[in-house]
Amino acid sequence: MDPLDAAMKKCGADAFVHYAAGDDADMRYLTRFVMHDSFVFFKRYRQPGTIIVPQMEAERASRESPAVVMTRTQAGFPDIAKKEKNPWKAASQMIAGQAGKTMLVSPALPAALLRALEEHGRVFVDTGTIEQVRAKKSPEEIRLIRTVQKKTERAMALGISLIRHATVKRDILYHDGAPLTSELVRVAIHKQLMDDGCRAVETIISCGKDTAFPHIIGSGPLRPGAPIVIDMFPRDEATGYYADMTRTVSKGKPDGQVMDMYEAVKEAQQIGISHIKAGVTGAEAHNAVVDYFKSRGYESDTRGFIHNLGHGVGLQVHELPTVGPAGTTLETGFVVTVEPGLYYPGIGGVRLEDIGAVRAQHFTDFTKFEENLIV
Amino acid sequence: MDPLDAAMKKCGADAFVHYAAGDDADMRYLTRFVMHDSFVFFKRYRQPGTIIVPQMEAERASRESPAVVMTRTQAGFPDIAKKEKNPWKAASQMIAGQAGKTMLVSPALPAALLRALEEHGRVFVDTGTIEQVRAKKSPEEIRLIRTVQKKTERAMALGISLIRHATVKRDILYHDGAPLTSELVRVAIHKQLMDDGCRAVETIISCGKDTAFPHIIGSGPLRPGAPIVIDMFPRDEATGYYADMTRTVSKGKPDGQVMDMYEAVKEAQQIGISHIKAGVTGAEAHNAVVDYFKSRGYESDTRGFIHNLGHGVGLQVHELPTVGPAGTTLETGFVVTVEPGLYYPGIGGVRLEDIGAVRAQHFTDFTKFEENLIV
Repeated sequence: MDPLDAAMKKCGADAFVHYAAGDDADMRYLTRFVMHDSFVFFKRYRQPGTIIVPQMEAERASRESPAVVMTRTQAGFPDIAKKEKNPWKAASQMIAGQAGKTMLVSPALPAALLRALEEHGRVFVDTGTIEQVRAKKSPEEIRLIRTVQKKTERAMALGISLIRHATVKRDILYHDGAPLTSELVRVAIHKQLMDDGCRAVETIISCGKDTAFPHIIGSGPLRPGAPIVIDMFPRDEATGYYADMTRTVSKGKPDGQVMDMYEAVKEAQQIGISHIKAGVTGAEAHNAVVDYFKSRGYESDTRGFIHNLGHGVGLQVHELPTVGPAGTTLETGFVVTVEPGLYYPGIGGVRLEDIGAVRAQHFTDFTKFEENLIV
Repeated sequence: MDPLDAAMKKCGADAFVHYAAGDDADMRYLTRFVMHDSFVFFKRYRQPGTIIVPQMEAERASRESPAVVMTRTQAGFPDIAKKEKNPWKAASQMIAGQAGKTMLVSPALPAALLRALEEHGRVFVDTGTIEQVRAKKSPEEIRLIRTVQKKTERAMALGISLIRHATVKRDILYHDGAPLTSELVRVAIHKQLMDDGCRAVETIISCGKDTAFPHIIGSGPLRPGAPIVIDMFPRDEATGYYADMTRTVSKGKPDGQVMDMYEAVKEAQQIGISHIKAGVTGAEAHNAVVDYFKSRGYESDTRGFIHNLGHGVGLQVHELPTVGPAGTTLETGFVVTVEPGLYYPGIGGVRLEDIGAVRAQHFTDFTKFEENLIV
């Protein structure tokens, strides 16, 4: 049975309703249609999904979405809006007219629309059916993610190559006579990804002490003998699927503490990978890495390994499943990252991140990119 | 009085609460902090705003946001999550502990969180205080938008230059020996914007009959003697502010109907601009353009002028105010587009879009880019 039909049946709903823009991952999954402004998706019990869009989007929607396309005019919106000036109330009247008296709505539905829909009947809030369905990728989705990952690795190769071939003057890396900055490497990576039909934002190119803060994206000249964390999560513009990857490099030999951290993280990643297969929980894989770090003297608190071992990747860069202390059972077809890291303010940080699929007996690593600290 | 304090006072709320990722415009406006995963903003009555972020984001948040920064640990989340496994219920318990018994929440708050918060006290849904506040730009915001618009015009110049300098063979435009496609122009524009620190997505480069559908982004070789619509809305990566601009060009003389449409749209834009000032409604400006089009024999229904005259632009590419049939009174400091268009399936479409600020007595057009159909 279709998971949405099952969820509707459970609460006796006539229809499932979502309202969001096409950059909402559930909406994109349900409709394969991207629109800047929010639009309505509804699916009556055992019926196909329908989207309600403005007249001017109807032609494109029919071309791009497998959903049934209805214009706002067909859904009666112009007449409703003449009498009802509150946009949420007008939208709810239109939706209730199509969906019925008892509705199951997306957990992400705007609070204002929920309140307005409640005036038309009983409204149940779904617990995340689509988010859960999205965790398990089809072979086609896995193909799409692997395609983005290949392009991501080409961009990583370019970024590392700029660092490898840089010259060093007065403790700064230079490229073509100018300082090689985080910004320069980021733009070079983003442009190559753009040529490959991908969009990357906020790619992390952090250096030195900044690397101790995993989400500082980095700025200014890169330096030799210091960790440089390159973390990118490009999205394929056409399909909407993400990849995610991190490497840590150093132009020349870094501090011994950083070298030790690198070896521990590299080993921890292999331990994480070896634990991931169907039936194991995300918590078990995470805790195996925590235990390993502890055995090497690294903590996992406010310093050391301070984040989850991994996360699902698909139409969102962070999605289900959780591969961390709260992680539940992994299933075949889940696509997750394995990204241990160690972070010590004043010293620096190291992170290595691969992406791959959970299988019955193992983890299929999509990432085929070498791990070498010194370049 | 602070608009959020006024809204709280009206319903007797102890605090205002929002929960979204940093790409939510209200969240970015309130916090100036961008995070991929959703986080909590709350503001107790007459107190400064506070954000609750994971430990690993706390350092960056303190650097980047003017809000008070609290970690999830400081807000008691780890202890709550030990007992409460439902993430919405756990979040709501943490939020209620900080915000108090009576809460005013953002209209965009996820429905699942609203339902969970209702278990802790009375919850009012705000009618859009921040969205309304955002419509009126500060001088600093206007400066930021003008900066993006300048970069947008440089990118437009590049795109049109590629078309102007193309060669024509067998009814197709060529550049450097290869067909000049929508995709090629789009990537060239996006790369130049990237060098300027801006990100553009889904820039429209549509040609010929596709231009009759305003949101078809276009693909394949561009053709001579046909309208080419270039509509771009880049965002400054650092500030989050958008610009928005459209030009329609033709390599060589197009069909007479298209030339007539172009002249009508160009004139309609001037009429729209001449009507926009403080105290006029968006509906009045829109209707003046509809009347003008009618006087020239163009309808405004399912063909002809099929969309609003304009919209607000800021941290969202489409935001308040509406400059269309539902548009209310314009105020000084509103930043809006003026973008009449005509669309006839089988013939094509023409759109011209400028952006500028509403002033007491006039419209300050930020756009300084020529309007010439034939290039």
